[in-house]
Amino acid sequence: MSIRLTTDIITFFKESFIFDSFLPLHTPFFNLKEEEYLIDCVRSNFVSSVGEYVNKFEEALHDFTGSKHVILCVNGTAALHIALKLLDVSAHDEVLIPSMTFVATANAVSYCGAIPHFIDVDEKNLGVNSKKLDDYLNKIVDFVEGKVINKNTKRVIKAIVPMHTFGHPVNMDELKKVSKKYNIPIIEDSAESLGSFYKNIHTGLFGKLSILSFNGNKIITTGGGGAILTQDEELAIKAKHITTTGKVPHKWEFYHDVIAYNYRLPALNSALGLAQIEKLPEFIEKKRRLAEFYKEAFKDFDEFEFFVERDYAKSNYWLNAIILKPEYEKLRDKILEETNNNGIMTRPVWKLLHTLPMYRDCPKMNLSVSESLEKRIINIPSSAWLVDKIKV
Amino acid sequence: MSIRLTTDIITFFKESFIFDSFLPLHTPFFNLKEEEYLIDCVRSNFVSSVGEYVNKFEEALHDFTGSKHVILCVNGTAALHIALKLLDVSAHDEVLIPSMTFVATANAVSYCGAIPHFIDVDEKNLGVNSKKLDDYLNKIVDFVEGKVINKNTKRVIKAIVPMHTFGHPVNMDELKKVSKKYNIPIIEDSAESLGSFYKNIHTGLFGKLSILSFNGNKIITTGGGGAILTQDEELAIKAKHITTTGKVPHKWEFYHDVIAYNYRLPALNSALGLAQIEKLPEFIEKKRRLAEFYKEAFKDFDEFEFFVERDYAKSNYWLNAIILKPEYEKLRDKILEETNNNGIMTRPVWKLLHTLPMYRDCPKMNLSVSESLEKRIINIPSSAWLVDKIKV
Repeated sequence: MSIRLTTDIITFFKESFIFDSFLPLHTPFFNLKEEEYLIDCVRSNFVSSVGEYVNKFEEALHDFTGSKHVILCVNGTAALHIALKLLDVSAHDEVLIPSMTFVATANAVSYCGAIPHFIDVDEKNLGVNSKKLDDYLNKIVDFVEGKVINKNTKRVIKAIVPMHTFGHPVNMDELKKVSKKYNIPIIEDSAESLGSFYKNIHTGLFGKLSILSFNGNKIITTGGGGAILTQDEELAIKAKHITTTGKVPHKWEFYHDVIAYNYRLPALNSALGLAQIEKLPEFIEKKRRLAEFYKEAFKDFDEFEFFVERDYAKSNYWLNAIILKPEYEKLRDKILEETNNNGIMTRPVWKLLHTLPMYRDCPKMNLSVSESLEKRIINIPSSAWLVDKIKV
Repeated sequence: MSIRLTTDIITFFKESFIFDSFLPLHTPFFNLKEEEYLIDCVRSNFVSSVGEYVNKFEEALHDFTGSKHVILCVNGTAALHIALKLLDVSAHDEVLIPSMTFVATANAVSYCGAIPHFIDVDEKNLGVNSKKLDDYLNKIVDFVEGKVINKNTKRVIKAIVPMHTFGHPVNMDELKKVSKKYNIPIIEDSAESLGSFYKNIHTGLFGKLSILSFNGNKIITTGGGGAILTQDEELAIKAKHITTTGKVPHKWEFYHDVIAYNYRLPALNSALGLAQIEKLPEFIEKKRRLAEFYKEAFKDFDEFEFFVERDYAKSNYWLNAIILKPEYEKLRDKILEETNNNGIMTRPVWKLLHTLPMYRDCPKMNLSVSESLEKRIINIPSSAWLVDKIKV
């Protein structure tokens, strides 16, 4: 059985796509536009934290997402760190984050001296399970002097950080209800969901603050980079100030009024980003076509489901995923092993954060869905350009 | 008097250099080499944290500085943060840093939860005043169970961070004696001194760890960027691990074993850096010629000294400085105002860190030299290419 399925998957990729010896999981696509903007940036002499390209890329992100404010950062982790800071996440606070996400989220919480509190995900959208979270908070939360207290640890719960896994939007209406009920603000981790919409509104516009990532593996890349999104002008001003060393503007004086960060995205990376975002509609269209192809092709496989967007969502299909049915979960490692051995790059989902040594003792709810999904998710090649390599 | 001197300085610049309306303080120089490497980087598709250019730029820095290990970081602040972490600087520790330095140093100490402890500089080299520091530590330090304790605050002093101001090396022999005597390790802040040597050894090779910066205003730039230098293999391995999310190498698994950072310099920025470091010997030569020109030209001014390298040093003359004699210190603001108004960009030294609101209550020694120098230092145009604009 294991051999049959693994062979069938490998055969599928070999017969479906034109490739020599290696199908990467996700690589960017550049053309002359990137080269043109980079050359222009270098010739302008403004390659660092000040420069036209920083403003232009921010403006383009504003136009595309509809976010009132966009503050570019050196990467998504830095953006998350600042978003947490701006919600006053401090030493000994708790922040609710999925156990099934990239480790940067837990790290950003740690940078604030705070403690990640792991929550479960929903098999339907791979993001925060609002119903389960509601039931859980109902049991563990106390309200003391306007603060939300974890009864078990006596610590304040300061924020909840949903993540739109692989580009698939969380059910934000449900989550917003929970956020409101317990008075816990949302920081929306849209690192993977640039180009994904929840009910026609771009992801990242629902949280008090949100973040994007333009890492090398993302739908568009700046080498490394990220952004903070917010609809709140005061937070936007603070975000800009604290990511740019807290310098108070002056013709020559170096006056800084707050402990701050050197987190601004350089103009060089912004130039790459601007060229990339001009291609974003095309990338989304291609990735959605690729997903459509996978969906159709995988219909006949009984052992797994190809993960598709929910009714409320338009997903960027950043990273395509197949999810083994529970009875086939034992095949995961074999499939990973053999596909990678055959030049078809696949990967499992992240190791659940509550199992990593540094986060093992953090508070957590029952994580049964995450634990089951971890054994069954396999990401498959997802680059936008791959749709053009389909054999006809 | 004030008017005469200010006018003379402005006249000097106008008569000495070919320029239209603006002489910047320090801007980079790029040519086709930068464009070539950036294009090659984009065409390679490896623009992010993994890529040939990251390795090549590290190798070039290794070759130039002679440092056994070089770990590229997203900027100098990040490098400093990690260097402090690797010396186990933790909450409620103290770190000795000059009050006369860029705010990033104090911020990096704060990121560790530690407290900057401000020390004075030496008028002879603008860096740490070792003699004064020795006398001070002698009074305030206790040794308890192998730890160096500040008797006044009861906190552990974990490190000392000298900075080679404007590229001029600190007297490292003197400082190393103090470091040894009090058992306080040195983190050498060489952000400004790439290309500067102390007794023929590159700055950054004296500390247990050291850092470089490639910010837009530095002698070479990567847009934003920095590096950790160390001669200790174990620290180098840790530095690489902790700056790259603490990921344990595996073909596909995401296993991270420590709270870590997303601090790796992208390949895109490294490509720019590689093109830049190939020009570094030329930049140094030009900057030294420019300094020579200033030195000669300013001989006739009685009101200030042009700051020159010490006998033990070969300086990169990153930022040239004139230092008003104490009796003329009241002229500083007028000179800054008028030169900038006339398109000649000048600036004062950083506002002393112990005077900034967030660091006002930190421990400090007598800072009389820094306080006097702050009133008298003026940085003047220093770009490497400026030497080619001297009127003949």
